[in-house]
Amino acid sequence: MTPPGEGATPGPVVRFRDPQIEMAHGAGGIASRRLIDSLIAPLLLGSGARGLGDAAALPVDGAALVMTADGFVVTPLTFNGGSIGELAINGTVNDLVVSGAIPIAITVTLVLEAGLPTATLEAELRAMALTAARAGVQIVGGDTKVVEHGKADQMYISTAGIGRRLPNVCLGSTEVRPGDRVLLSGPIGDHGITILLARGELDLEADLCSDTRSVLPMVQPLLEALGPAIHWMRDPTRGGVASALNELALDTGLGITISEESLPLRLAVRGACELLGLDPLHIANEGQFLAVVAPEAADRALDIVRAAPGGEEARFIGEVGTEPAAAVLAQSRYGGTRIIDMLVGDPLPRIC
Amino acid sequence: MTPPGEGATPGPVVRFRDPQIEMAHGAGGIASRRLIDSLIAPLLLGSGARGLGDAAALPVDGAALVMTADGFVVTPLTFNGGSIGELAINGTVNDLVVSGAIPIAITVTLVLEAGLPTATLEAELRAMALTAARAGVQIVGGDTKVVEHGKADQMYISTAGIGRRLPNVCLGSTEVRPGDRVLLSGPIGDHGITILLARGELDLEADLCSDTRSVLPMVQPLLEALGPAIHWMRDPTRGGVASALNELALDTGLGITISEESLPLRLAVRGACELLGLDPLHIANEGQFLAVVAPEAADRALDIVRAAPGGEEARFIGEVGTEPAAAVLAQSRYGGTRIIDMLVGDPLPRIC
Repeated sequence: MTPPGEGATPGPVVRFRDPQIEMAHGAGGIASRRLIDSLIAPLLLGSGARGLGDAAALPVDGAALVMTADGFVVTPLTFNGGSIGELAINGTVNDLVVSGAIPIAITVTLVLEAGLPTATLEAELRAMALTAARAGVQIVGGDTKVVEHGKADQMYISTAGIGRRLPNVCLGSTEVRPGDRVLLSGPIGDHGITILLARGELDLEADLCSDTRSVLPMVQPLLEALGPAIHWMRDPTRGGVASALNELALDTGLGITISEESLPLRLAVRGACELLGLDPLHIANEGQFLAVVAPEAADRALDIVRAAPGGEEARFIGEVGTEPAAAVLAQSRYGGTRIIDMLVGDPLPRIC
Repeated sequence: MTPPGEGATPGPVVRFRDPQIEMAHGAGGIASRRLIDSLIAPLLLGSGARGLGDAAALPVDGAALVMTADGFVVTPLTFNGGSIGELAINGTVNDLVVSGAIPIAITVTLVLEAGLPTATLEAELRAMALTAARAGVQIVGGDTKVVEHGKADQMYISTAGIGRRLPNVCLGSTEVRPGDRVLLSGPIGDHGITILLARGELDLEADLCSDTRSVLPMVQPLLEALGPAIHWMRDPTRGGVASALNELALDTGLGITISEESLPLRLAVRGACELLGLDPLHIANEGQFLAVVAPEAADRALDIVRAAPGGEEARFIGEVGTEPAAAVLAQSRYGGTRIIDMLVGDPLPRIC
């Protein structure tokens, strides 16, 4: 707060006009981008900031550090294939990895609701420890706060991570060129639809698991072999592949054309999306990555990712061009095309 | 979660027996220490961990990094002299500083309750930016999540920070020796009592402000001048001076004797504590630090801190000895003594 008598500090002018925060502001789509770009980033990161990427580059005494932070409020806490603790560690690891860094250390801050069974907390602590060990990253500290019963929903987790940037890697929207190819590591929508089913609000059953996992085993060999030919990476979590690619299109002004036919999609995800009127391109993933690859390196890139554990279903789903400007276009198998927008609203709240 | 079929992963055995989480587990006193030492640290940090200090040392490629993380759930969000945003930045800065590091970068993760007025969020973003600028630290990124109305209390903030350890500084309970002196930077209890008054539940008024501030301007000259003679530091936040010194006593097995007469205490804090039956030694501070100093450096240490902006009221409040083993003793002005325990229970919930 401004101390009395000091007068109002002018600070940056903000263009965010929504009078209050709604669920959509946390959904990873267009409302989230507006909140970040027109309120949070200008105020917190200063006027030069271009929005919060997955991680910030931070050179310190010759070490090429990368730092990231994430919050997790998923409900329910556990679901097929994972839990909030696994998401928290894998999500932080993946933010570092798609920034071209090898994770080193993670901190874990817990906000616990009074009345939380110790067994629930213990299970998530064990899940975090196991997941960190699997990803080869160390949990180095954290903090624990407790709020009254009814002032949280069991537990929320916030993480931060630091990593060491791989040499010879230069990722960013400014590196992306027309002609680049768009690689996707595997089937989309598994995480989001799994959470939806876990809530039990729908009379649907499916043999589906969250894809929560570290993408390091797929990305590390890719970046080590092809470094400068990989131009941009992102893990398509909240808002899905559509929102990630739209962010790239908006940041570059270029057009991205994807082939709907080429999208890897499990039958259960396709069925649930058709039934519920959801676009699988908007559904969250927690163990996939998108990479924009120079065309001359495309074949090798695909071979490397497919040879890595977990990357067997990787494929190219599209290409960067100049048209449509700053937008994402999908070609259907029947030759039609449609513009793919960022996620609007929040059809699946608290997915991660 | 353990994948089906893999069987239970044994992992560390935990000794925490409370069936559920209560407010006291977040209060910074004896229940917090039990939760951390017997559940969270053994599971998250591995069997070698000795509990979560304020920050973890993290050497990376020749850079002597320190990393810390904090959660903030204070209610109300604003109070005399500060707000949750200021607390979040100053708290993170101070955790790094009392670990002997100069802060470099902070991340900010927000959990927002749907329905939060944008003006409230904007005020806290501006407060964080201003506080970071004052402390000379950069906010480099973060994350924003939104939960349904009624699933949080307006907003919670989680931060992480990294800093660069000052050369020639070696802080830790293993450095503490009998004969060392205990320095306190200024009056205690201002923050906790200010929050209590801000809640308006008591028919009390006082001209009191939170002491939230960066301790860097006081600590940096101290460590730069006297490095190895400063053996241990801590910012006595939740649980107060009593809990911080008890942690030191428990970690070392040594006894710490403080003089109650020497404790700097504003009249309003003294009055509120007497009225409410609270011990000012248990009340949270957000802009003070404790330093254990080698006796031969004591005079210079006090001169340095008193000459620094904000350190004018610093003084020595006690001494390290061998008795009483692993405990803190207070001498009253009338010659009596009493054992000062860690905070038990949570008389002032959600103080930071």
